[in-house]
Amino acid sequence: MARALRVGLAGLGTVGGGVIKLLDTNAALIERRAGRAIEIVAVSARDRTRDRGVDLSRFDWVDDTAALATRDDIDAVVELIGGSDGPALVLARATLARGRAFVTANKAMIAHHGIELAEAAEAAGAALKYEAAVAGGIPVIKGLREGAAANEIGRVYGVLNGTCNYILSTMEQEKRDFAEVLAEAQALGYAEADPSFDIDGVDTAHKLSILASLAFGTRLDFGSVAIDGIRHVIAADIAEAHGLGFRVRLVGLAESNSKGLFQRVHPCLVPLGHPLAHVTGSLNAVVAEGNFVGRLFMEGRGAGEGPTASAVVADLIDIARGEFGPAFAMPVASLAQPAPAAAGERRGRAYLRFTVADRPGVLAEITAAMRDAGVSIESLIQRAATADGSVLLVMVTHESPERAVIEALDRLEGSQSITDRPMLMHILDI
Amino acid sequence: MARALRVGLAGLGTVGGGVIKLLDTNAALIERRAGRAIEIVAVSARDRTRDRGVDLSRFDWVDDTAALATRDDIDAVVELIGGSDGPALVLARATLARGRAFVTANKAMIAHHGIELAEAAEAAGAALKYEAAVAGGIPVIKGLREGAAANEIGRVYGVLNGTCNYILSTMEQEKRDFAEVLAEAQALGYAEADPSFDIDGVDTAHKLSILASLAFGTRLDFGSVAIDGIRHVIAADIAEAHGLGFRVRLVGLAESNSKGLFQRVHPCLVPLGHPLAHVTGSLNAVVAEGNFVGRLFMEGRGAGEGPTASAVVADLIDIARGEFGPAFAMPVASLAQPAPAAAGERRGRAYLRFTVADRPGVLAEITAAMRDAGVSIESLIQRAATADGSVLLVMVTHESPERAVIEALDRLEGSQSITDRPMLMHILDI
Repeated sequence: MARALRVGLAGLGTVGGGVIKLLDTNAALIERRAGRAIEIVAVSARDRTRDRGVDLSRFDWVDDTAALATRDDIDAVVELIGGSDGPALVLARATLARGRAFVTANKAMIAHHGIELAEAAEAAGAALKYEAAVAGGIPVIKGLREGAAANEIGRVYGVLNGTCNYILSTMEQEKRDFAEVLAEAQALGYAEADPSFDIDGVDTAHKLSILASLAFGTRLDFGSVAIDGIRHVIAADIAEAHGLGFRVRLVGLAESNSKGLFQRVHPCLVPLGHPLAHVTGSLNAVVAEGNFVGRLFMEGRGAGEGPTASAVVADLIDIARGEFGPAFAMPVASLAQPAPAAAGERRGRAYLRFTVADRPGVLAEITAAMRDAGVSIESLIQRAATADGSVLLVMVTHESPERAVIEALDRLEGSQSITDRPMLMHILDI
Repeated sequence: MARALRVGLAGLGTVGGGVIKLLDTNAALIERRAGRAIEIVAVSARDRTRDRGVDLSRFDWVDDTAALATRDDIDAVVELIGGSDGPALVLARATLARGRAFVTANKAMIAHHGIELAEAAEAAGAALKYEAAVAGGIPVIKGLREGAAANEIGRVYGVLNGTCNYILSTMEQEKRDFAEVLAEAQALGYAEADPSFDIDGVDTAHKLSILASLAFGTRLDFGSVAIDGIRHVIAADIAEAHGLGFRVRLVGLAESNSKGLFQRVHPCLVPLGHPLAHVTGSLNAVVAEGNFVGRLFMEGRGAGEGPTASAVVADLIDIARGEFGPAFAMPVASLAQPAPAAAGERRGRAYLRFTVADRPGVLAEITAAMRDAGVSIESLIQRAATADGSVLLVMVTHESPERAVIEALDRLEGSQSITDRPMLMHILDI
């Protein structure tokens, strides 16, 4: 039996504790699978005194996190600190510069600095692994990097944020509005005190940009992801969507073709027959479409102590086995850098919801704007006025270019009849 | 750029042709991903003259398939001949004995001879890879061997045979009987002329035994898989199951615990809320339950030219990258060999369908047998007699040990009231 893989662990929050528990609980099995033991030798975190429910006395405590990178008794550093810059990035650079393996769950850092770190890893011949950064316990990084590696991938998309999916699922089940369900999720610890990274789609965009790079063999391009969150989805949207045969999901979608690289995070209407419609609660799921394999679908738990620890330790096992290679599936020099594709020419059906005043001529005004922009209407539902006198108008357009729908909304900008921001969601007809 | 990985391809049926097409179509992309080109240099098949729709003139033609193993210009042999023994096994042994990489889609050979071949691969330090042997294009071998490697897996199960799932889905959609749908599937080329390997569950059992070995770290034990197929499922079973909130699926399920290793292939009632209920047509899907990751679900196309070629070439890319290790996730010497677990003590609900004569006392006779065996009935449906005078009696039991249900059926053996073989299906309450 080869000697143990010696690990330095930075960050002792929920996931850090999970990694320690996993390595304890499954130690014998992991040693059989990895061909050698995987042992934590040193840990580092901000607060030494906090009780984390695991015995830390067996590990060296390191006050200066970056010192984990330079110890001679550490083969691999696991970073669970978080944040795209700061101590996490300092640690990553220092570890890879020393030629040591680096494992992280940090999607923000990979989305922003992944290329730099991959270059450092290549230069040093070191492993840079980040399975836990996307979709938690689902081995989707491995699925794209290796499982689907023989395919040209045309599209990769999925439900990548458990908090948003929990909120949308609960809104649907309990017919409640966004703010109320969010507040409850925060009280239960399912949503952060500052939830904007999740609910405004930034977290999904981080993950999407990583998936896109792996799927298409392109450089990370987080900056060109169009991002919209779920803040403006109301209970009525979900109810109307359901009546029309859809569920509302926050979908991150990336597509690569001759028009360039398209990346968008957006609440979408997903047909009930599509596998993403069945991804409920805090589950995550990813779909990849390959030119030979067809549609691959992977679902599982996208966050939390156990699933994230599972992904972190899977990376460590790959390292212990010596089964690893370029972080983005190919050397950085081989990655393409396509131009971002504009959304305007994309064709599809759209869902529109208007809150309007209950008076004559409103419907004529809105339908005229649609006609003048060249958008044809597939179905239209007008509900009777609610107690506050506002009327809900919901429509699904026929397939048309997105710019036409945007133009129709532009024409209605400033209308006195429309009392609230219109809601636009794309329909996932794939 | 390193020199190309040179491949010898044995077997030029649908999948062999697919591998050639894939390596042609995606050549540039594969070279970027693998870090080197993957090139077929020689091919071998029974019939040299058959038109396969691909240009074979660029490859050396080898009449004696086994000669692929001994050529100095071949780094990896791909075996797509099929059959658990015969030329496929001869080629596997010869290739691994020479220390060359061996890639196969041959589930029967792996299920029967996988341990011997893994030992040969280990002794020679060669790769033995078989992603295409289970669930076609879905990277489930990799998912278990690597993606979920940090977990103790309690249970692995899935829909592993596309032909059976196509037949069951079509029976459900078109409310038609088994024999008719099978005949049509054969005419369309979706089922083999001799379909017994598929419909009697043997193919699923081959795949299940492979998944079980990877999931649990145990030696392959195909011999102890309990196997039942879908031949006796009638349209009425599917309709009644649907009325009760279930779909009928041929499920291969393996479970490992202190009672031993349990492996069974059986038509099951799957609750509509379970992801396997949404696996329709010829799709395949696999569920693995890990002690940290929770439930992982992977779905995709389980057979056919493109998906199978995708899996074969993914294996070649791993080999080209040098990212491979023990075939069953750990050295053969580390694999455990648990005793097979008996089905009798398993607890669960069961579906029973009796075809009975339309006369007094029948219901009393059957319900008495259930009572005497200690099986309590959750729901019971009796339909009015059909034109031929037979009556359908369907029941769902409360959770009980399987031996009790078997005992009830034994008590009814030889009954004059029961005019056809009773149907027993287990309910997948997981």
